[in-house]
Amino acid sequence: MTTPTPLDQRPKLTYHALAIATKKHGVGSSESGDALLECVRGCLEFLATLDRRDLVSKVPGKEYFVFENHNPRFSDSRGINAGWFNDDIDEVIAAIQGILDGVLPDDPNDLHSALYTAAISYPAATDVTKAGDQKSPGTFFEVLVGQLVSVTLDSQPAKSVAAPTLDMVVTLPTDFVFDLGAGRSRIHLPVKTSTRERVVQVWAHQRVLDGMHGVGRFQGVLVVLAETNRKTQDDSISEVCLPGQWTAYQMYIAQMRRVYYMDIPDKYVGLKDIYPFLQVKAFAEFFYEWESLVNPAKDD
Amino acid sequence: MTTPTPLDQRPKLTYHALAIATKKHGVGSSESGDALLECVRGCLEFLATLDRRDLVSKVPGKEYFVFENHNPRFSDSRGINAGWFNDDIDEVIAAIQGILDGVLPDDPNDLHSALYTAAISYPAATDVTKAGDQKSPGTFFEVLVGQLVSVTLDSQPAKSVAAPTLDMVVTLPTDFVFDLGAGRSRIHLPVKTSTRERVVQVWAHQRVLDGMHGVGRFQGVLVVLAETNRKTQDDSISEVCLPGQWTAYQMYIAQMRRVYYMDIPDKYVGLKDIYPFLQVKAFAEFFYEWESLVNPAKDD
Repeated sequence: MTTPTPLDQRPKLTYHALAIATKKHGVGSSESGDALLECVRGCLEFLATLDRRDLVSKVPGKEYFVFENHNPRFSDSRGINAGWFNDDIDEVIAAIQGILDGVLPDDPNDLHSALYTAAISYPAATDVTKAGDQKSPGTFFEVLVGQLVSVTLDSQPAKSVAAPTLDMVVTLPTDFVFDLGAGRSRIHLPVKTSTRERVVQVWAHQRVLDGMHGVGRFQGVLVVLAETNRKTQDDSISEVCLPGQWTAYQMYIAQMRRVYYMDIPDKYVGLKDIYPFLQVKAFAEFFYEWESLVNPAKDD
Repeated sequence: MTTPTPLDQRPKLTYHALAIATKKHGVGSSESGDALLECVRGCLEFLATLDRRDLVSKVPGKEYFVFENHNPRFSDSRGINAGWFNDDIDEVIAAIQGILDGVLPDDPNDLHSALYTAAISYPAATDVTKAGDQKSPGTFFEVLVGQLVSVTLDSQPAKSVAAPTLDMVVTLPTDFVFDLGAGRSRIHLPVKTSTRERVVQVWAHQRVLDGMHGVGRFQGVLVVLAETNRKTQDDSISEVCLPGQWTAYQMYIAQMRRVYYMDIPDKYVGLKDIYPFLQVKAFAEFFYEWESLVNPAKDD
């Protein structure tokens, strides 16, 4: 009999296994899917052992808490949306397994809380066990989204595009791009834990793809975890949104087809009603509407 | 008699005075110019007291050293280009004062080493006296470039642009923009200590300006300190350049008119000879050719 792995080691170990699986088999492989589920489970089981503390929420209509860390070497977790976090680990795993198996609940809202909980699992667990690691939560979230989209689209993603020009071949590293074959749009899928001022690069890369390959060839789909911002001074949490800037990018740089959130800010939802009509939705919606994004004939 | 300020305190104190001057009087004011010269002098006089150590240079044709710090709380300075760093502090100050007074040496190369030395002064001094401060060196460099360009163009910069659209006014925060009056191009002047993967935002903002106000209304002028990258393991320094990506941005996002460097990477100089012919030059050149950038009639 081997000693079971201590719970607080499981986020790190399962993430490590996930990184190996995606490196060896690629995002979208069944091996990566299995490792992803193990990592989500490992993180949630660890988080379930921690104390929680409510934050002062400055976001109307949303409540947040943190997982507390009583070890002074590390901080508390990032803010967790109390309305969407699901304490039933088996339910979360079953819902994510369902996406990987192509089985969805009838109502996207039923999927949404599982997606939110899975997405925040490793980032929250890392916050309380590792100091100053911003990179691995970002990579985890990218793999989670990439894996689910890849299985759904039945296509493994690439991370660069090449364009032959009159003089040379120009190659550009990108976020995930999915080639769905002749007659269907390709998907340009940037994935960010939050956007802040760097988000303009999403529209810029979309513009490069439009210029290289023609407008409409790549459908731009941005997926974001949350826009929450914690202030430790007063233990509060707020959302940082820049809808005016997004409007300018959507008008003047390129047109993103969708922005999906795990924890969707109300300020961005309204962008669908004003020119240039950017649709910002919960990520669960993607799994119900992806066919209209990739099949120009079924375009909305 | 008051005790003179210890030399190692002068970078911090003179930077603080510079920040106050720019906040109160704006970049381009004579007060900011005076404070800038004080800060450059304070930093160079402090650096002159430090030991130096040569780095292993992996950049063909360039030698680098660091200012050493024997205090374990702080690191050594960033790599300093030995060929361009000027030990004659009075000469550096006189050359920068010359720009502020509208007096230039006949040969741009004579100005270049003064500009390089002034630009690296505060960043290097901060490296060895403050841990983990990346922000203030960036702000210093932005103020240095902004001040010299502002005085040269006889125009104080703004940091946002507004565009009336059919529905609303869209406002976008930007890097420096200079309004030179009717009949002359405006200047969009992003300033970066290095570019790395974030530089695409420069082209993206240029695209927004082109879209808002028409192509050619704003001339894009990017100013960069250096692209050096230190590896502490083997005490070496290299340059990180992505000319293929810049080519893609220049072809498909927007057209920057110039990129100026303090420590210019050879790999970018060659971009002027291949489509889309991006001119990358030493920053000193700006002061000799700026009229051709802002006067469409004298366009090259």
